[in-house]
Amino acid sequence: MNIRISQYSPIGIFDSGIGGLTVAKAVMDALPNEDIIYFGDSARVPYGIKSQETVRNYSNQIARFLLFRGVKMIIIACNTASAAAHDSVQALAGDIPVINVIESGTKAALRSGKKEIGVIGTLATIGSGAYEKALKEADQSLTVKSKACPLLVPLAEEGWLDNEVTRQTIEIYLEPFKSNGVEALILGCTHYPLFKQVIQDYFNDKKLELIDSAESVAESAKKRLAKLHLLNTAFSKGTLTCYVSDRPQRFNELAEQFLGREPESVHVESLRDFEDDFGGKMFKVAETAE
Amino acid sequence: MNIRISQYSPIGIFDSGIGGLTVAKAVMDALPNEDIIYFGDSARVPYGIKSQETVRNYSNQIARFLLFRGVKMIIIACNTASAAAHDSVQALAGDIPVINVIESGTKAALRSGKKEIGVIGTLATIGSGAYEKALKEADQSLTVKSKACPLLVPLAEEGWLDNEVTRQTIEIYLEPFKSNGVEALILGCTHYPLFKQVIQDYFNDKKLELIDSAESVAESAKKRLAKLHLLNTAFSKGTLTCYVSDRPQRFNELAEQFLGREPESVHVESLRDFEDDFGGKMFKVAETAE
Repeated sequence: MNIRISQYSPIGIFDSGIGGLTVAKAVMDALPNEDIIYFGDSARVPYGIKSQETVRNYSNQIARFLLFRGVKMIIIACNTASAAAHDSVQALAGDIPVINVIESGTKAALRSGKKEIGVIGTLATIGSGAYEKALKEADQSLTVKSKACPLLVPLAEEGWLDNEVTRQTIEIYLEPFKSNGVEALILGCTHYPLFKQVIQDYFNDKKLELIDSAESVAESAKKRLAKLHLLNTAFSKGTLTCYVSDRPQRFNELAEQFLGREPESVHVESLRDFEDDFGGKMFKVAETAE
Repeated sequence: MNIRISQYSPIGIFDSGIGGLTVAKAVMDALPNEDIIYFGDSARVPYGIKSQETVRNYSNQIARFLLFRGVKMIIIACNTASAAAHDSVQALAGDIPVINVIESGTKAALRSGKKEIGVIGTLATIGSGAYEKALKEADQSLTVKSKACPLLVPLAEEGWLDNEVTRQTIEIYLEPFKSNGVEALILGCTHYPLFKQVIQDYFNDKKLELIDSAESVAESAKKRLAKLHLLNTAFSKGTLTCYVSDRPQRFNELAEQFLGREPESVHVESLRDFEDDFGGKMFKVAETAE
């Protein structure tokens, strides 16, 4: 399938739910001219407890949806999908660049120069060993410790960002990192940046660097688009168009928490038309302006 | 579509995930001869945060799957699905009886004779007002107070059944019931029976009756099947066959927590063949033995 992209094409961002709006926000901050199409798979959230195969299947459906909308780049904002589906999404996208939060978080951790690195994420992200593998491949001398923290997503969605329950949960999950002297901690889930303060408070006597994957993936996107001459140089402010597979309970409240404001344009899209691979695994870029 | 059922047909039980195995366990305890087909929609769990329409759509798919397997009764073990989809599932099932945890929990609360009744559940269950409506319709003199407790499911799935985090979470959620003198509390979610002890501990100075919807729906099933002469009178022990739409992380560990043992027969079923209504909304019973 041939598609046309240009610097004016939108950036596609997807996540298992609406937590990836933290990534959309970081991209909007770093690249204010860009139009963004965001897809949150709220009907099937969370991915973090599902099998790799199911996560890959869902991610491919979303990638097809975004590619049919002519995106010039796909950002996988979901750590679980980054670990399970980066390669299959890149195969579908052909020449269109695909970047993901694990790759970017890994680069940011390497840039920090720290040697003792901790990673927290969902069961699926940690179970995949993706961060650990990427870090060790880049630098064998690193010590990497990982821990799944499955309660942090529901705590964020309940809005309990710094009460006693949250502080104790953080303490139970992060105690092994504190006692082992970790120097940098990768926040390997879109929801976790909301706990930056309470995590910093818990490590108060330590020089701990928190690696926020939303910020690092936005920086990666900017560099990659610049290299491909695909940065939008229009003077107008970019737009954000949100698609969700289901309009969840508390949607506005949650979206505001992640995005800092209510999204103006939200559509429900079932993805039923994107379940098949249309007989071809590759989208080809027919022509690239600029 | 004509289907044949008899006393030897299995009972179908479904839930958004594997929490409904608490209901399967209660049914197996109350009706040890019955064969059970359990469906847990683990690929799309949780239902509690999704829209009513999506929950209805998913429930109908599962109901079709169970009806095609010739079940003599459908038990909706999921409170969210009970509230959103009972009527649509009953319409599909035609003459096959459909019972649900909300109906049974309501009856048990009425039998308790208590006048101040509390209800806890997911966001969707509480948002639907289904328990409150059913209780008030039966007895206008009741006082009913409800509260969504979205963190209890993830706490149960993390296996934190009685640590400090769980005790504090229970305290935050249930404080309004304690201060208002509630006399009976409906545990309106399949996961909540796991917290019976910690809830009782929190209300230690009160005479609080906990209504366990798993037990009450098993009793309802027994009565209804007896009335229809559909109780399995075979001398052999019934079987439990589990279907899940995805084999989730920690499956065995979780299943054991809910069921009290590992399920022996587990199959993955995508439900893709059950998305359409096959041009008809009604399954007719062709012939009922006995």
